[in-house]
Amino acid sequence: MKITELSQNCGEWLRGGKNDHAGVVLSCRVRLARNLSAFNFVARADDAGRLAVLKTVREAVATINFPATELAYFDLEQLSDLERVFLLERHLISRELTDKPGARGVIFDRQEKLSLMINEEDHLRLQALGGGEQLRETYDFLSKIDDDLSNFLDFAWTPDLGYLTACPSNVGTGMRVSAMLHLPALTITKHIEKVFRLVTELHLAVRGYYGEGTKADGDLFQVSNQITLGRQESELIDDLAAMINQLTDFELKARDFLWQERRLELEDRVWRSWAVLREARLIKAEEAMFHLSSLRLGAAMRIIPPISPAALNCWLLLCQPAHLQVNAGRAEMPAPERDALRASMLRKQLNAIKN
Amino acid sequence: MKITELSQNCGEWLRGGKNDHAGVVLSCRVRLARNLSAFNFVARADDAGRLAVLKTVREAVATINFPATELAYFDLEQLSDLERVFLLERHLISRELTDKPGARGVIFDRQEKLSLMINEEDHLRLQALGGGEQLRETYDFLSKIDDDLSNFLDFAWTPDLGYLTACPSNVGTGMRVSAMLHLPALTITKHIEKVFRLVTELHLAVRGYYGEGTKADGDLFQVSNQITLGRQESELIDDLAAMINQLTDFELKARDFLWQERRLELEDRVWRSWAVLREARLIKAEEAMFHLSSLRLGAAMRIIPPISPAALNCWLLLCQPAHLQVNAGRAEMPAPERDALRASMLRKQLNAIKN
Repeated sequence: MKITELSQNCGEWLRGGKNDHAGVVLSCRVRLARNLSAFNFVARADDAGRLAVLKTVREAVATINFPATELAYFDLEQLSDLERVFLLERHLISRELTDKPGARGVIFDRQEKLSLMINEEDHLRLQALGGGEQLRETYDFLSKIDDDLSNFLDFAWTPDLGYLTACPSNVGTGMRVSAMLHLPALTITKHIEKVFRLVTELHLAVRGYYGEGTKADGDLFQVSNQITLGRQESELIDDLAAMINQLTDFELKARDFLWQERRLELEDRVWRSWAVLREARLIKAEEAMFHLSSLRLGAAMRIIPPISPAALNCWLLLCQPAHLQVNAGRAEMPAPERDALRASMLRKQLNAIKN
Repeated sequence: MKITELSQNCGEWLRGGKNDHAGVVLSCRVRLARNLSAFNFVARADDAGRLAVLKTVREAVATINFPATELAYFDLEQLSDLERVFLLERHLISRELTDKPGARGVIFDRQEKLSLMINEEDHLRLQALGGGEQLRETYDFLSKIDDDLSNFLDFAWTPDLGYLTACPSNVGTGMRVSAMLHLPALTITKHIEKVFRLVTELHLAVRGYYGEGTKADGDLFQVSNQITLGRQESELIDDLAAMINQLTDFELKARDFLWQERRLELEDRVWRSWAVLREARLIKAEEAMFHLSSLRLGAAMRIIPPISPAALNCWLLLCQPAHLQVNAGRAEMPAPERDALRASMLRKQLNAIKN
């Protein structure tokens, strides 16, 4: 598999899911942190140690019951800066794996459901992505792979603590479950801060589109568990699922409020975004995400013609900088040229919709 | 003539002119300040004096050779606040005549070419409006009326000073000639300040769309003479005409520059404005003027489908607050409702254009 083969399409998880809670839940993610007991943790590993971990994990992966043709390995050190950012934009690798030097790699399947990051903060980070709210299914899928791998890999684990991890916040289950939520009405009505205080009080975390420390561009928020220690995996899933239900409910109530009390203002935002995406010649990424958020809201509320969540998810991805460059076959590109390409891509997509 | 009869249309002068200098010159205006020697100046007049001036001027106007059915008189004290602002928006009366209390009136013709303001700052302000750059024709037209009136009215005049006026800046010819210019490219390229320093050095003045102290909304600028004393009327006209040529030349050069060097940015602004006007549900007056400016520029440069200057001039007028209210038959209207009406009117107009 070549990286450029991916570039025109979106991962399976972005095609939407059966449980998308009225379009509010874009996707979910389960991640497990694991370390090999026979090796130093990544932060204390030398080059030989890192290479040995890479080799050991790859050998184990080769044995597991997963359609072999579907899995591809990429050595992060062999990839260009552009290709690494491209994988980051697809959520196939983390910021840490993108930027931090040293022998490291990623294995993922063509559908981009599974991603195994090697020598990230921990020796192995297993990640599964699902469309909509499919936390349970996504966890079951990943758990099976975790089980299969544990037949060949000796994970650092103690009866008292559970899985041992580089960061204490991951000790225990080593699990983080998260969901990507689209909360534009809560943002417009300025209730979002209040809602997030509630989320935080319940020991869950809220982050932006690209994880920790990033902004909530496009009104997209990642909600995840904070605690991994002293809880069962299914409790963590149940807690997050309950919170997703709650947040979806808040968001839909806020949409109702906007529809009843501030309809013109709502329609104005949606139609302006529709118009700008159909005609602008230069659009920065942040502005594109704002307008795509309006469209997602407008389509969900039937203000504008139907646009599928899958199409919106895909455009969101295709308008990211590295995707624009990979699709144009350009390692380097000045920002204004990217803005023109982005506008052109979005204009083409939007004008293909029957008004 | 009823004020509401005017509200759906635009004055003749807004229909464009034969000398519009590639769309840069929207219109021109000649104004003559006159006072009756038999009466105290307006600032020192009592009620009886003001009424006497009104009566005297109206009697004189009735005698002049102007199609009688075409002229209408309005007592400003009898008009509502809304109607006064409506006339101000049409440039038929000045801000002073709109706001300052006391017996005062205006006489204008149905085509809105001529306007005679009585008891403004001076007893009589004669104003003629012309489309495009028709300074000479507009002056000749007004001068004839001034001559006719002077057969019946004894204007305050001395051989040394010329016409005597309330403000020393008007003494002499009592004339102000001005033109409304559309200078978006000079604004975008930020050369406008430099250009205006030049204008000011040549003893000409630059003002916004609604005259002294107003902003240049919609990239529209009024350029006029500053000096009225010690110069002949035709010199003042020639000076302004030369400046209009110069400014038009600067503006067209700036447009060429944008086309050559910053085309995408230019197209982006024009197409975004086109898109927003076709779809927005709420637009404030200032924003509407900005977008109409983009459209005027875009149409002149053939970036968007053709839109006549006459249509643009008319929309500019119809989207002003008092025009929206008069057309809706509403003495009072909350700003958001006006914004919705404005957006709706512009949307209808823009969507009637073949793309």
